[in-house]
Amino acid sequence: MTTPVSPLAPASIPELPPIEGVRIATAAAGIKYKGRTDLLVMVLDAQTTVAGVFTTSKCPSAPVDFCRESLKGGTARALVVNSGNANAFTGRRGRETTALTAEAAAAALDCGTDAIFLASTGVIGEPLDAGRFSDLLAGLTDAAREDGWREAAEAIMTTDTYPKLTTRKVTLGGATVTINGIAKGAGMIAPDMATMLSFVATDAAIAAPALQAMLAKGVGPSFNSVTVDSDTSTSDTLLLFATGRAAARGCPTISDAKDPAAADFRAALDDLLLDLARQVARDGEGARKEIQVTVEGATSDAAAKRIALSIANSPLVKTAVAGEDANWGRVVMAVGKAGEEADRDRLAIHFGDIRVAVDGERDPAYSEAAASAVMQRPEIPIRVELGLGTGRWTVYSCDLTKEYVAINGDYRS
Amino acid sequence: MTTPVSPLAPASIPELPPIEGVRIATAAAGIKYKGRTDLLVMVLDAQTTVAGVFTTSKCPSAPVDFCRESLKGGTARALVVNSGNANAFTGRRGRETTALTAEAAAAALDCGTDAIFLASTGVIGEPLDAGRFSDLLAGLTDAAREDGWREAAEAIMTTDTYPKLTTRKVTLGGATVTINGIAKGAGMIAPDMATMLSFVATDAAIAAPALQAMLAKGVGPSFNSVTVDSDTSTSDTLLLFATGRAAARGCPTISDAKDPAAADFRAALDDLLLDLARQVARDGEGARKEIQVTVEGATSDAAAKRIALSIANSPLVKTAVAGEDANWGRVVMAVGKAGEEADRDRLAIHFGDIRVAVDGERDPAYSEAAASAVMQRPEIPIRVELGLGTGRWTVYSCDLTKEYVAINGDYRS
Repeated sequence: MTTPVSPLAPASIPELPPIEGVRIATAAAGIKYKGRTDLLVMVLDAQTTVAGVFTTSKCPSAPVDFCRESLKGGTARALVVNSGNANAFTGRRGRETTALTAEAAAAALDCGTDAIFLASTGVIGEPLDAGRFSDLLAGLTDAAREDGWREAAEAIMTTDTYPKLTTRKVTLGGATVTINGIAKGAGMIAPDMATMLSFVATDAAIAAPALQAMLAKGVGPSFNSVTVDSDTSTSDTLLLFATGRAAARGCPTISDAKDPAAADFRAALDDLLLDLARQVARDGEGARKEIQVTVEGATSDAAAKRIALSIANSPLVKTAVAGEDANWGRVVMAVGKAGEEADRDRLAIHFGDIRVAVDGERDPAYSEAAASAVMQRPEIPIRVELGLGTGRWTVYSCDLTKEYVAINGDYRS
Repeated sequence: MTTPVSPLAPASIPELPPIEGVRIATAAAGIKYKGRTDLLVMVLDAQTTVAGVFTTSKCPSAPVDFCRESLKGGTARALVVNSGNANAFTGRRGRETTALTAEAAAAALDCGTDAIFLASTGVIGEPLDAGRFSDLLAGLTDAAREDGWREAAEAIMTTDTYPKLTTRKVTLGGATVTINGIAKGAGMIAPDMATMLSFVATDAAIAAPALQAMLAKGVGPSFNSVTVDSDTSTSDTLLLFATGRAAARGCPTISDAKDPAAADFRAALDDLLLDLARQVARDGEGARKEIQVTVEGATSDAAAKRIALSIANSPLVKTAVAGEDANWGRVVMAVGKAGEEADRDRLAIHFGDIRVAVDGERDPAYSEAAASAVMQRPEIPIRVELGLGTGRWTVYSCDLTKEYVAINGDYRS
């Protein structure tokens, strides 16, 4: 099945600069797909630090288990990713596959397997034969070069309709450093955590604990605030690598995430994570509109987030957006079901800049025509004011269309 | 928009016997729909006791607030239901509408407004003008007759494709009593509670507190275990009336829900509630298949229910069922995201009588053809064994089809 490119895809795919200390190679290993790449190897300089966040699923994939172990060492030499098969719910054979893959990569780079990171994405429950690609790894680590970020983003796609890449440059201690990121994900996307694959690298020098703290904070309003279908993957993995190569250009090593010298870096990282996360929502399976749900005036940020997710995950809200229907009654429904404190008679709801409801009733000045004009846009901001406190959160989602059903009713066959 | 009748509709709509002490009238008040009835009045004999359960929404409709007040009295003289408008999120005007409606009904029956029960279903946020039907109530209470249960079920339909009725006869203290029930609901259906409208009546004599205890227990495995789309309505109302007329035929008055004499009655009531609840799931918007999710071996019944709901609400599981795809990997995903204890390597999953996964891997004897044969049935039993304890629960749902999106993307217009 060929799915047309999401109408929410960026007008052009950005070109990413190299990151010193990161080399990339891809291959077509024929794991499931024909005529395209499905294997990514990212080779990292010695001394590269790493941070990671993973799915909260109680049934995580074998590569997620593997990465959680490797992360304890805090350093990385290579990342190996395949698409087409998630190596999830594959039991003992799944663990054998991760071990074999890591051993092949470690042998090629003469390092320990605990410096290898793995990710797999695709169908669940099918055995993944490491023999299909482990003998390619030595050649790929040799062939890897500093450019190739777009090829990397393409090799990890599954039902994605466009590759997801972004980059930032920022000054850190007087030196310019770069952050590159790629992501994949289009369905089975929900918090927590980071329900897709994403790999981010920088040439900044940041100790692993500081890197982990920055990442854990950065995913809150970005990858952990994106939902396509409320379904949490078994495989969600976000890894952040810091090669430290910018140290040679005078960039200081950051050992505390709260170091004021790194404030701009953190802001750039947060911005990059949000950019990638929104790209995932905008490529939600069958999506034609991005939904931006902001809840304000809640009793806490956590309450605001829970209500925002209730709205963003509601099939009735999502189908209304697909139908360009400013059906704010369904927003009220979703506020009510979230289980958080809400006072029906204080609620106000905006679609874009149009206030459709206030004080528990339809806005006296409500204009169906004005609301409908908002609903025809590609981005639909829905804002709910609860009037109870100062809690606030924004969640990103997409509409629910017949194409979502078509894509997922016919995925395996 | 005309929606074809669900393929899961009963082969024939049952004829319901009269319930002594219950008289029914319907009318076409033109509230929203043209050329059909949209107003139901059920007149109840004096001494009728009543129990009720309602939506857990924090933004309930005006009639739900009204019923909660009336329920404190424990007795009922009339039920007034309209379809086409939910009178939800209608603020002060919504409360005026419930007050006016109740006053008109109470005047016609010469009773207090606290013996009147109200329900409204349909679009949210539109003011409901009581003047459209309040002047019809006196005539309707006069015209009401003991049959007319099918007309009652039809008058309360919204996007339902068939009227939902069922009946049971059971012996209580040597006398035969009857229980009749009707329900409506097809979308915005999720626990808790009883996320639709349903009205049940019996001629048994049961004190209000005992009736409430029986109802509260009966909805657990029935209406509170049904989900169409995870969206909880603002208006869900289930009322159970007991006219006590069977007392004249020697039926004892039950004052304790645990009275052994009422054991058969309770069983019949529970069975009737499950029947109605499943009829709601089987008329889920766009549904072509009923999904019966049973989780066994959980650490508690509550954990089993939460995991079963996670599976039954998963868009990816529901679209797989729509596509007749035995995609058990998505079931693993939904187990994993539920947040309850689960051991990936002990899981077993059955579709019908076909075990597709065991011990955390695809069943060695797995046959795609055998699993596919199950998926072509109209009812799809999915059974998950966790192997951790004795907790068990069953949840009823339906598949997610393009028709659901079509129905809900074009509901208001």
